[in-house]
Amino acid sequence: MSYCVGIRLKSGMVLASDTRTNAGVDHISSFKKMFTFGVDGERAIFILTAGNLATSQAVINRLRREIRQNDERNLLTISSLSEAADIVGGYATEVAQRTRQKAAMVQDGGGYGCTFLLGGQIKGQPTRLYLIYNEGNCIYSTEDTPFFQIGESKYGKPILDRAINYDSNLDDAIRATLVSFDSTIRSNLSVGFPIDLLVYKTDSLTLPKGKRITEENAYFRTIRSAWSQGLLEILRGFDTPPQDYLE
Amino acid sequence: MSYCVGIRLKSGMVLASDTRTNAGVDHISSFKKMFTFGVDGERAIFILTAGNLATSQAVINRLRREIRQNDERNLLTISSLSEAADIVGGYATEVAQRTRQKAAMVQDGGGYGCTFLLGGQIKGQPTRLYLIYNEGNCIYSTEDTPFFQIGESKYGKPILDRAINYDSNLDDAIRATLVSFDSTIRSNLSVGFPIDLLVYKTDSLTLPKGKRITEENAYFRTIRSAWSQGLLEILRGFDTPPQDYLE
Repeated sequence: MSYCVGIRLKSGMVLASDTRTNAGVDHISSFKKMFTFGVDGERAIFILTAGNLATSQAVINRLRREIRQNDERNLLTISSLSEAADIVGGYATEVAQRTRQKAAMVQDGGGYGCTFLLGGQIKGQPTRLYLIYNEGNCIYSTEDTPFFQIGESKYGKPILDRAINYDSNLDDAIRATLVSFDSTIRSNLSVGFPIDLLVYKTDSLTLPKGKRITEENAYFRTIRSAWSQGLLEILRGFDTPPQDYLE
Repeated sequence: MSYCVGIRLKSGMVLASDTRTNAGVDHISSFKKMFTFGVDGERAIFILTAGNLATSQAVINRLRREIRQNDERNLLTISSLSEAADIVGGYATEVAQRTRQKAAMVQDGGGYGCTFLLGGQIKGQPTRLYLIYNEGNCIYSTEDTPFFQIGESKYGKPILDRAINYDSNLDDAIRATLVSFDSTIRSNLSVGFPIDLLVYKTDSLTLPKGKRITEENAYFRTIRSAWSQGLLEILRGFDTPPQDYLE
């Protein structure tokens, strides 16, 4: 499993992914699941992945090869992010299907699909954030639904539901994202450090450097302990349950 | 889906279940998923269910019928809760298998299984809490793992992970349970009010009356709003993210 969050706000986007991949609990590795493509001053495109690593790597490699080869249609030439989302969805289902056909010769079952978050901005257009499903189709975020998650999403959803709306500022979105990762990592072994974080400011049209956050990162540790302590304080601050709750 | 929590502490047990059942989003009903069996001063047994409602109702009905008929082996005569857990698991898989066979005549697929929490105490024995799987087998909680969840469990797990340990008191366990339900209900449509709550004090050997908590319950509303407000205050209290997070 993996965990990725994409938040699209009026002021910009916050994207984050974990780096753990596992095939069973005894084969755990660390892989980057966040990829960027851009032309300074013209476009910035971000892709985050969850699901079958072989499939997502094949998709990312193909996208990169197309750019290297100066193919007529590649992520740096297409005219919209919706086209990018369609391309990624199409490639992913192709790879997954091919793998499934080959795998069927040697065994039954197996999940070869993956999901993606694809976000960014092309000059003259608004920012966009797409969630690309296993099936290759996609949806984009709106003001009513300013964030998407892929992978192991449930543990870290409640805090995003409460804290994020389209008008939130980037700092608040970073804070909520880190807490969402903290909750997920604590509750699920298949999601792990380091976390890759990327913050894009609307209309900046440059690729951010991004930040890799390890478990030892000072700011993350402060947040983690303030959050833990704060939660317990709220709980303890509640009134005693009414007597009839205990009868 | 459903959501049930069972917490077994040194001082007693806290059990809670929601009451929503649905077959698709247009067929939503309210059903009790918590059942009690007991003999005052001698035993108290609690069963919570998630999964296929027809299967769990058939299991509960069979358990009740055995008591009514004074069968030699019923929940009020068996000598241990581990026996109770085995019986429940066996009945559930029998019913699910029968349904699956009949269903296969008219259609493919379908999930007919269910999971249970079974807890309580028999005189002279410690309290016990079992999680009975879909497959009919079961595990019991220990001091290291003082709570189980069944149904839609992920949204509400982080707060229990943080707040509950074997030495927690019953009041704290009630508070954490209510927060866990609040998080789940907010994030998932298939879990809904009212919540059935039951608190059992170790060695009391009486069936508690239990409390049905609606969305309008004054204490629940206080907790819900204090929690929401408190979370946002903690988030806002965090330091500003370091500048290199945004580059």
